[in-house]
Amino acid sequence: MEHNLQHTISLLTRTPAALNALLRDLPETWTLRNEGENTWSAFDVVGHLIDAERTNWIPRARMVLQLGETQAFESFDRGGHVRESQGKSLGQLLDEFARLRSENLGELRALNLRQEDLERRGRHPALGVVTLSELLATWAAHDLTHLHQISRVMAHQYREAAGPWSRYLGVLQCAGHSSP
Amino acid sequence: MEHNLQHTISLLTRTPAALNALLRDLPETWTLRNEGENTWSAFDVVGHLIDAERTNWIPRARMVLQLGETQAFESFDRGGHVRESQGKSLGQLLDEFARLRSENLGELRALNLRQEDLERRGRHPALGVVTLSELLATWAAHDLTHLHQISRVMAHQYREAAGPWSRYLGVLQCAGHSSP
Repeated sequence: MEHNLQHTISLLTRTPAALNALLRDLPETWTLRNEGENTWSAFDVVGHLIDAERTNWIPRARMVLQLGETQAFESFDRGGHVRESQGKSLGQLLDEFARLRSENLGELRALNLRQEDLERRGRHPALGVVTLSELLATWAAHDLTHLHQISRVMAHQYREAAGPWSRYLGVLQCAGHSSP
Repeated sequence: MEHNLQHTISLLTRTPAALNALLRDLPETWTLRNEGENTWSAFDVVGHLIDAERTNWIPRARMVLQLGETQAFESFDRGGHVRESQGKSLGQLLDEFARLRSENLGELRALNLRQEDLERRGRHPALGVVTLSELLATWAAHDLTHLHQISRVMAHQYREAAGPWSRYLGVLQCAGHSSP
């Protein structure tokens, strides 16, 4: 299936409101607990999404358009969420994510990308040559990977509480699959 | 960790709005496609959540309170989503889910459950003896298992579009874990 930029934008537009509806003012049992040492809570994930808005998608799209394959993207700092979230409340993070996403979608629309632009190529430091189309599709799929993670991290908090039903709940069989 | 009924209600209250924010008016590429034969789309999942509101959680809670362990719950019909969703739009399903959830939470609050009520026992047709507490915690975790599923089914639609990044996206490594 060919990547459809309007479909990507439709999803990217909705993620901040979906996370806001799910997480705002939820008890900290759900939002601040993680899955164990060196894992993320829902709060951490929102910090990571903010970091990616600042440093990943639009900056990389600009690099593809300006530099093509000549220069590799900077590696994404998977610890950047700590910098974004220190001293903030989850409500502040949700607001910040919504604000940045809205700005970035404004920038994306202003680029007025045509099909031939989507085929332009850039260089990922580990993956090698990638297209602008793949980068933008990944932006949307990345939202979904973290919604998937948040639902798993939250469900983990009820593993004991659900008693024997825990073996029927698919989310509780998911060990997480993100690269380290 | 002891099950906290207020935490459960907090989550149950938010799920309809979260799904509404994520799914309403999203292109059908995202909402009507599934993961292959005999799998569910996001649309199907919302139909299933409606079915569970009608036939599972509150009816079973009433059975625990009225009949205890003497009579097993009726088996849950995993095909019930078809009955609920035939001929309807996703918008109609989202409205219906929100309405039923709100009614059911009203019923739950009206039961005015005390700790000793939560310890009351019922009988599941396959799992055997379960407590009311476990049933209600499972209601919340079941929302999360289906949010986890929806994010995975949607991400699957972009498996090709994300190109080489697909190997980095945890959600695309998740094969699903629900019991058949």
